[in-house]
Amino acid sequence: MAKPKKTPRPKAETPKGFRDYFGTEVTQRAEMLQAIAGVYHRYGFDALESSAVETVEALGKFLPDVDRPNAGVFAWQEDGEGEKPGDWLALRYDMTAPLARVYAQHRNDLPNPYRRYTMGPVWRNEKPGPGRFRQFYQCDADTVGTASMAADAEICAMLSDTLEEVGIPRGDYIVRINNRKVLNGVMEVAGVLDPSDPDKFAHERGIVLRAIDKLDRLGMEGVRALLGEGRKDDSGDFTDGAGLTDAQADTVMGFMQAKRDTGAATVARLYELVEGSETGKAGVGELETMASLLDAGGYHADRIEIDPSVVRGLGYYTGPVYEAELTFEILDEKGRKRNFGSVAGGGRYDDLVKRFTGQEVPATGVSIGVDRLLAALQAKGRMQSTNPGPVVVTVMDRDRMADYQAMVAELRQAGIRAEVYLGNPKNFGNQLKYADKRASPVAIIEGGDEKERGVVQIKDLILGAKIAETATHEEWKDRPSQFEVPRAQMLAKVQEILNNA
Amino acid sequence: MAKPKKTPRPKAETPKGFRDYFGTEVTQRAEMLQAIAGVYHRYGFDALESSAVETVEALGKFLPDVDRPNAGVFAWQEDGEGEKPGDWLALRYDMTAPLARVYAQHRNDLPNPYRRYTMGPVWRNEKPGPGRFRQFYQCDADTVGTASMAADAEICAMLSDTLEEVGIPRGDYIVRINNRKVLNGVMEVAGVLDPSDPDKFAHERGIVLRAIDKLDRLGMEGVRALLGEGRKDDSGDFTDGAGLTDAQADTVMGFMQAKRDTGAATVARLYELVEGSETGKAGVGELETMASLLDAGGYHADRIEIDPSVVRGLGYYTGPVYEAELTFEILDEKGRKRNFGSVAGGGRYDDLVKRFTGQEVPATGVSIGVDRLLAALQAKGRMQSTNPGPVVVTVMDRDRMADYQAMVAELRQAGIRAEVYLGNPKNFGNQLKYADKRASPVAIIEGGDEKERGVVQIKDLILGAKIAETATHEEWKDRPSQFEVPRAQMLAKVQEILNNA
Repeated sequence: MAKPKKTPRPKAETPKGFRDYFGTEVTQRAEMLQAIAGVYHRYGFDALESSAVETVEALGKFLPDVDRPNAGVFAWQEDGEGEKPGDWLALRYDMTAPLARVYAQHRNDLPNPYRRYTMGPVWRNEKPGPGRFRQFYQCDADTVGTASMAADAEICAMLSDTLEEVGIPRGDYIVRINNRKVLNGVMEVAGVLDPSDPDKFAHERGIVLRAIDKLDRLGMEGVRALLGEGRKDDSGDFTDGAGLTDAQADTVMGFMQAKRDTGAATVARLYELVEGSETGKAGVGELETMASLLDAGGYHADRIEIDPSVVRGLGYYTGPVYEAELTFEILDEKGRKRNFGSVAGGGRYDDLVKRFTGQEVPATGVSIGVDRLLAALQAKGRMQSTNPGPVVVTVMDRDRMADYQAMVAELRQAGIRAEVYLGNPKNFGNQLKYADKRASPVAIIEGGDEKERGVVQIKDLILGAKIAETATHEEWKDRPSQFEVPRAQMLAKVQEILNNA
Repeated sequence: MAKPKKTPRPKAETPKGFRDYFGTEVTQRAEMLQAIAGVYHRYGFDALESSAVETVEALGKFLPDVDRPNAGVFAWQEDGEGEKPGDWLALRYDMTAPLARVYAQHRNDLPNPYRRYTMGPVWRNEKPGPGRFRQFYQCDADTVGTASMAADAEICAMLSDTLEEVGIPRGDYIVRINNRKVLNGVMEVAGVLDPSDPDKFAHERGIVLRAIDKLDRLGMEGVRALLGEGRKDDSGDFTDGAGLTDAQADTVMGFMQAKRDTGAATVARLYELVEGSETGKAGVGELETMASLLDAGGYHADRIEIDPSVVRGLGYYTGPVYEAELTFEILDEKGRKRNFGSVAGGGRYDDLVKRFTGQEVPATGVSIGVDRLLAALQAKGRMQSTNPGPVVVTVMDRDRMADYQAMVAELRQAGIRAEVYLGNPKNFGNQLKYADKRASPVAIIEGGDEKERGVVQIKDLILGAKIAETATHEEWKDRPSQFEVPRAQMLAKVQEILNNA
């Protein structure tokens, strides 16, 4: 029977919904983010790293994602001073709310317009799920202080360049653009939006927005049901619909399906749909302006296209919205082929800075889903391992550690990744198992006999693995995977093996 | 009189003790960390990015810094489920406590020994002060799972290589090594440590440790006072001393001053001082082993030396301790010359993983003070700006935005950082002011007249600034800072200016 313990040991576990990242998980992400930063820099965007901690007051209390209004932040209260209660602080849940705070705080010192990019973790106090963590990376670029469509067009062009730069070839992605004003115009026409009382039907429009945003998942029929009475999903749960009449729902469905073969034809169709709405016409005009700017920059419909079915879920967008979808197929968890899907999205939000300053400050920006894009690059075999295993110098004689240290020093000075085995050297088999776990390309062995004769044994572990795999194959039959070289030739021989690897 | 507001605007401010980092502050740090990661990688260390959030249970509740036992963490309680209260979570306050948790959690999957490096922010719930923030970067490298002095020696060598790699030349830094067992041996000899009852005099030894760690600041006399009755500082505050007798204090002072001209002579002196203490002798032996391994790797006393006055403040070190000091002079806030001082430190801690597993897991590691090292590189002029201003294409005719977009697209495709001016183009002076704020090297101007004639105006802003500075100087007199070139030659001309800049 176990004795009851006095002080139980702490559990060695990350909190629920958090995880650690090891080796190439860290370096591949860093490499991808660095490539992205290079493109952003070329576009004139400046780096910003804002504090991870904000006052709850500055953040606003809830996530902007209208689909999860109760999803929260990690927050705590500071110690107060005397009678005065302490501030409530919280971890940032995205990069946009902090940008609004930074811009309002530093606007006199920042260039105007201000283009900035930022990369880093954000935290959400949500129920974790498979592949859904409470800490994850975001990588955002925004332009604050200009209402010009050139800013939106530029960000779409930059997104296109970024995808190609990190390794998604043209043809494997599409940047889709749309405009919230067009949707609002369509709603006006359908009678679900009254320009003189914009708050009326806001609830219904929220449902419409979220329904369209789920087109991918629900299909036309599912969206249609949500526009009307509502929808029962596979599990039997019922989601309330917007209660639109058939005629209203048809108008909205017509908007979603307004995409034509060319941008010009789509624009013409949209003008028909918003006939009679000033807002709608302005929105189509903005789309036209963006499309012509993009065309002038060489970004044609094979990379960036107008697609009225793109609406984005966030409530705060006021004009252009855009998203990048990867169009190549992968197998989903059930082995079915499907498009990889969205990896980035954004749009124009003209009201966020106003919370602080009272003045409307127009802004537009994009956020890349770092983990999804990285997964796409891995799926396409675009990430080379940046973490080659080290050469392992084994320890045959623990009193000659200095000799082994001199070997690794020599290898490292030549730029080769190298380690001495630092575990208990007694069992040589363990040393080779360690080299295997480290994915070492080469092991070096220098026992007393070798030392005396001025030689070292070099074990080519890559070749060794190949021989083991294809033992009967002629090609490898006569090539030894271990050989002896004079100590002075160790470096040259290791370099030769690594160059051939 | 101002009308009372209904909902006051949120304050646009970082929480107290937090700050934002802009432009080169971000990119220079990233660049430095990347150079450091390159060295660590070559030494066989693997990247780790652990969760920023830990359970308070896993972290242990307080900072290990014995000098600030009440300094805290940012912590909050999770929502509970039913009767069960939620876990307390906290932001990590350093990288060592999370490493112990990660190693305990994943030890079956990790190589053994496990070398890892990590870089990122840590958070401390402390009173902020000038230059002292509640979020800052740490960059750590640790080897877990080996008691070999080769691991400690390797980290010191790596620290030395790292400093040279980022731009601190040999001669401008020194890595100092010492060993806590030697100090314990000296305490035994002085009668402040009884090996059969190690907890006796623990309080006194804590005071001695912190006093020695402050040698730089307090001088010999100040340390001596703290070893005895105590010390009154300049402000009149009194700090209690360890209450050592004169003889005991003399022994400790002798230890601090045991450094001799050569490592061998220092070692010999230390053996004299710990005569009669097994622990002390073991410690000196460890120092000897490290020194001989380092010598064999080519790391001599001009880079790494034994210095008994180095003890490091943290309570958890059990053997070797080491720190890197930059030895060049800078001017302090009062204009006095002083050595730049310590930028990195670490040591061996054999008990941290044991909290989780019950088994002692030997470990050793170093932490670089990222902000201090960056400040040192800036002071030495080692950081080149990685944030050159963009070429600014001005907007003379807002209907021809497409033309201007095409220009920046052409420049960017050639790898040149370039922007279109996106503010209100009405006032051309504002566009040039913007270019100035962006530190632009070149502005491009294409009005209707230029467009018609197929030319653009190129304004060399670097030359312009030089001319403005030295208006009477012969050298610039005849060189125009603005000229006209055919549109087709814009790119070539801009490249020429940037290459000559």
